[in-house]
Amino acid sequence: MAVKLMIPGPVDIPEEVRDAMAVPAMPHYGDAWIRLYGETQEMAKRVFGTHNDLYIMPGPGTMALEAALGSALEPGDTILIPSNGFFAERLQTMAKGLGLQVLSLTFPLAEPITAEPVEVALREHTEVKALAIVHHETSTGVLNPLQRVLEVARAHGVLTVVDAISSLGGVPLPVDEWGVDFCATVANKALETPPGVALLSISPEAWKAIEARQAPRGWYLDLKTWRWYMENWGSWHPSPVTMPTSNINALHTSLMALLEEGLETRYAQYRAAAVATRAGLRALEFPMFTPDEWASPLMTAFCMRPAVDADSLQQALLRDSGVMISGGLTELHGKILRVGHIGLARRRDYVVAFLLGVEDYLRQTGVAVAPGQSLGAVAQLK
Amino acid sequence: MAVKLMIPGPVDIPEEVRDAMAVPAMPHYGDAWIRLYGETQEMAKRVFGTHNDLYIMPGPGTMALEAALGSALEPGDTILIPSNGFFAERLQTMAKGLGLQVLSLTFPLAEPITAEPVEVALREHTEVKALAIVHHETSTGVLNPLQRVLEVARAHGVLTVVDAISSLGGVPLPVDEWGVDFCATVANKALETPPGVALLSISPEAWKAIEARQAPRGWYLDLKTWRWYMENWGSWHPSPVTMPTSNINALHTSLMALLEEGLETRYAQYRAAAVATRAGLRALEFPMFTPDEWASPLMTAFCMRPAVDADSLQQALLRDSGVMISGGLTELHGKILRVGHIGLARRRDYVVAFLLGVEDYLRQTGVAVAPGQSLGAVAQLK
Repeated sequence: MAVKLMIPGPVDIPEEVRDAMAVPAMPHYGDAWIRLYGETQEMAKRVFGTHNDLYIMPGPGTMALEAALGSALEPGDTILIPSNGFFAERLQTMAKGLGLQVLSLTFPLAEPITAEPVEVALREHTEVKALAIVHHETSTGVLNPLQRVLEVARAHGVLTVVDAISSLGGVPLPVDEWGVDFCATVANKALETPPGVALLSISPEAWKAIEARQAPRGWYLDLKTWRWYMENWGSWHPSPVTMPTSNINALHTSLMALLEEGLETRYAQYRAAAVATRAGLRALEFPMFTPDEWASPLMTAFCMRPAVDADSLQQALLRDSGVMISGGLTELHGKILRVGHIGLARRRDYVVAFLLGVEDYLRQTGVAVAPGQSLGAVAQLK
Repeated sequence: MAVKLMIPGPVDIPEEVRDAMAVPAMPHYGDAWIRLYGETQEMAKRVFGTHNDLYIMPGPGTMALEAALGSALEPGDTILIPSNGFFAERLQTMAKGLGLQVLSLTFPLAEPITAEPVEVALREHTEVKALAIVHHETSTGVLNPLQRVLEVARAHGVLTVVDAISSLGGVPLPVDEWGVDFCATVANKALETPPGVALLSISPEAWKAIEARQAPRGWYLDLKTWRWYMENWGSWHPSPVTMPTSNINALHTSLMALLEEGLETRYAQYRAAAVATRAGLRALEFPMFTPDEWASPLMTAFCMRPAVDADSLQQALLRDSGVMISGGLTELHGKILRVGHIGLARRRDYVVAFLLGVEDYLRQTGVAVAPGQSLGAVAQLK
């Protein structure tokens, strides 16, 4: 049985994107590459909603975030990192690793990061130079409402760094309109390609901070290195290192499809998948972990109903229905399960396979469930 | 006309390895991944000739080198970096970017780095904590004879860091036998896969230096981060970040073929391709840039013969024969051309296409060349 991936990532991707990974080797320089790379950058900028510089870097998303924080801030600088989950904590860990003073602000799990406490903190701590925030907290499925938080940060003159790793391309994040100085994402979440590259946009304000920075910053993760190549070798060899050309070819293919389809269309598909999943699960008496108001359309976190064990439901779905979903991380392990909606999982057949799989499991464990009880609820959605 | 890549990289790779890039997405955790990743690590260790820890990291080779230097050395530490070309200079640039004191030792281009001047420098500069050296200087085709240099470094108790980016898998580099503390390479040179991942081996001595290091070191490029995941999440999720699973699947495929064929067989193929290329070019009166004694079997750098323009020969080969070779870098531009032998370029049909292309070009520019003059010389090799 072919496994359907319904996890927060990796995601099942269209065959045309996978095929684009298998092209013959091509050099990461010269006319053909400049065209492919340039087009990929331009398409990515449209998804980011930005006219800022945008670099595609070999490596994972955390690396791009580290390049941003480490290139713009000096060891000893203070950064505010509000947290409502695992990936915000990782941002904090990384910032500490860079020698930054981390000012934390902890929100309850399953609740969003809001602007007011951020404003209070910034008023009190005038030494804060930057704010870093996770857009989609994949550990809980909360989509943090960024716009107001970013406004507050800008009003206080602090740089803004957004971890949009699991959100960009799946929900609106207009980088220029919202004033994001650094925005980092990866190719392998809502841009729906295999993992391998990160994308990072850099505002003019961010460049000023990078230029002002003095302490040693290495080479690969120093964004000045990237700019030097773009400015000096841009017409022939625009990056400092060998680029993962196959992965970027796949990203080109995927972005083309996304933009042809239209961003709004894609966003609507995710919303529809999430709404159907939530309606179906509720019809089976599973409570949602994240209130609808803050729930990400890209991933659904739900709680257990009485007498259902999270691990065994997760295992049964994989074994009997070929649907792979994810468990809760750290303290949420055993309490919640997480179902991803990106990649092919945004299609109706994935949602149906998942819900029927849950029904099967309930029946196997002796719970009375009418066949299609969950799908009935889905059908009633307008 | 399909282009034959005969450049120092990227390389034309077998179809089975390209196909391995197009597999369906797989999670970078769980039993299937642990098996694939573990097997890939073990096969890579056989190619490295090491029992040391070996990490596969998303990103380019310079990133792995930076992880090594930055994790083991403090800003202000002194490192000796002998140089005989462009990539040694890049190592120096990177080390300076990390705040290290770089002690340079410059050897003439086309000549190897030798042990005696290194020994003199280490005797004079007892503050040196590490030696970093390029194995195959791809800018000139010199294969630096490492073994004696590494012996000298060990005798002086300095850590050794080898940039084996373009050599490992193509020529012998027995990491444990030669005492290499950090050895970095990439999947996309002599391991013959598409670009995307680097491989780094780390000796017990190197770990001691990493443990002793105090200054902030970020997160992604801090090797402690990698070890923490291997030690604590190794049975399920052995790396700190999302891994480029498709690229590592391709590497698995490629390493399997390499080890089945046998390292010595592969090394011999490169040597044969280089020897034939050199014999053929000499028969056409092109002088070699690198003396046979130091010439890498992985790439051949040759000089121009009278009245032949390097750029126009390079362009004609691509246009008329579909063979892509490389020019000289920086001060060698226009003086030398570089022909790669790795990937499918180790096959006889590539060498023949290249030599016949050179003959065609000479004839077009009015030089009297007997048809097959270069191949005749190749045929006389035993």
